[in-house]
Amino acid sequence: MKKANVIDRIFHGGLPASPRNQKGLAFAPTNIALCKYWGKRDIELNLPVTSSLSIALPDKGTMTYLSLQDKATDTILVNDEEIALTTPFAERLVCYLDLFRPKKNWHLHIDIKINIPIAAGLASSASGFASLVAALNDLGAWSLTKQQLSILARLGSGSAARSFWMGFVEWNAGVQSDGMDSFAMPLDIEWPELRVGILTLSNKEKPISSREAMQRTVNSSVLYSAWPKKIAQDLAILKQAIHVKNFSLLAGTAESNALTMHATMLSSWPPICYSLPETLAAMRKVWELRHEGLEVYFTQDAGPNLKLLFLEKNQAELTEAFPDMEVISVFEG
Amino acid sequence: MKKANVIDRIFHGGLPASPRNQKGLAFAPTNIALCKYWGKRDIELNLPVTSSLSIALPDKGTMTYLSLQDKATDTILVNDEEIALTTPFAERLVCYLDLFRPKKNWHLHIDIKINIPIAAGLASSASGFASLVAALNDLGAWSLTKQQLSILARLGSGSAARSFWMGFVEWNAGVQSDGMDSFAMPLDIEWPELRVGILTLSNKEKPISSREAMQRTVNSSVLYSAWPKKIAQDLAILKQAIHVKNFSLLAGTAESNALTMHATMLSSWPPICYSLPETLAAMRKVWELRHEGLEVYFTQDAGPNLKLLFLEKNQAELTEAFPDMEVISVFEG
Repeated sequence: MKKANVIDRIFHGGLPASPRNQKGLAFAPTNIALCKYWGKRDIELNLPVTSSLSIALPDKGTMTYLSLQDKATDTILVNDEEIALTTPFAERLVCYLDLFRPKKNWHLHIDIKINIPIAAGLASSASGFASLVAALNDLGAWSLTKQQLSILARLGSGSAARSFWMGFVEWNAGVQSDGMDSFAMPLDIEWPELRVGILTLSNKEKPISSREAMQRTVNSSVLYSAWPKKIAQDLAILKQAIHVKNFSLLAGTAESNALTMHATMLSSWPPICYSLPETLAAMRKVWELRHEGLEVYFTQDAGPNLKLLFLEKNQAELTEAFPDMEVISVFEG
Repeated sequence: MKKANVIDRIFHGGLPASPRNQKGLAFAPTNIALCKYWGKRDIELNLPVTSSLSIALPDKGTMTYLSLQDKATDTILVNDEEIALTTPFAERLVCYLDLFRPKKNWHLHIDIKINIPIAAGLASSASGFASLVAALNDLGAWSLTKQQLSILARLGSGSAARSFWMGFVEWNAGVQSDGMDSFAMPLDIEWPELRVGILTLSNKEKPISSREAMQRTVNSSVLYSAWPKKIAQDLAILKQAIHVKNFSLLAGTAESNALTMHATMLSSWPPICYSLPETLAAMRKVWELRHEGLEVYFTQDAGPNLKLLFLEKNQAELTEAFPDMEVISVFEG
């Protein structure tokens, strides 16, 4: 109901009767939050309690190909494998597409290529929903602005709101109950020396979705009451650090922000712990290296993997310390 | 200065001129907090921000033998090994004893026997200071009440205030600036089926003292602002759970309380993490067993070791799951 209202407002009264094109195609990068999105003020619209700030990983993400098909259902391929419509993943996707069907018997062939592990805390759903909505925009020749696409993608997955730009992106929480002021914007500052190192410690699907973990945290963690204050502080510091290119301030704040998000989860009941012993071992190694003078920090999302933050000048040393790490030059995509 | 004032108040104007006896002897058990003491409102007097609740481990603790000696300094033996007076441990002890010297040239031979690892999160300083002050009371034949001893021991180490009783003990935070209302009291409820399993995962001394970790948390963790609220809730639930003998309520609340304390530390800067990968592996094993229906919970103090909480009926199964665990029948000492 609330979602349909958003569609109405974006399309000024209703979806165009039928799409202009037979096919639609779009890529969206995944994004890593330096200041996390954790907790919703509206569950249906994925409206966040707080603003957040991310960095895009230019070569990592999702390409979605859409084509109209004359069938009674949608079909979904993920990396060339057909997904049963009864899986939770397909149900979520089909349900999201329902928002955009101009008539009842209108179905799509959805071909998704994704080059990051799914549901392992690498923001696969962020790039997934962003690329889907951008592909719909291409299919329908709607010519929506990125701001409008950001609002629509948010309805599928909160952090997808941030996946329409490269570089630093801020998602403003907004205050309106319909969420029309809750969308992301790029920061337009480049930092070519910045590196993100992906440390994949487990590819297994996470035992609890971030959607559910977020809700449990908001409902049961006493510490969550202090989270908005933490975000307000960190967001201001991060933007200042980006502005003056102070790496240790940027990355230290991002690490503290991630640890604080996981801290609110530990304090939920039943406790939520995405970290594996391997995660903790990698964290301790980062702290040790930093203690020895090497400027390296980490961030962690709703999964056991870590993303290291460092500068180009330390890349060789860090690749030696973490031979399995995949290094991403975030501003050289 | 503040400490000397406490001594004055307890001894009504000053210490007795010289001790009645040549020797003093006392044992104090260590205690495991189910509701943690974390954060001070007065650093010098070890006055806590919040109240706390613990359970004594009857056979684990410290025996302190004191004897007057005609030497220019104190001598300190720990488990038959002489400790140099220049070590931080000895300095802290000598400095504490300075509060109680009736005249300048008054020195003690201090023979400490302790059967728990020192400074590994097993509350060695709690039983240490409690047994020391109780041995002084014996040496001086002061006939102080346990309440008075609790206040004096707190000046050495906060949690020592709780180490004068067996069973459940509550330390009331108090509100007075001199701390004369900040002492512990026993709950006088027995629960013979209750078991504590000590899971020693590392005997190494902790990298950061709980004293320092507490201060850093109070000063830098945004989440700490929610800690007093968590304590107020948990303390009420724990007392109710003890009253009605609801084990899962008791142990679940204790686990959540411990995780929340560690959560406030993770959110400090630099982050504080007492857990080792082995700690996390053991936690996950506890969660798995619980998921399978076995009622087992854990608590963790300022160190990597865990203390499991369970009932006698599950002891055999848990000893099989954790073969290295030492089981303590807390009400059968």
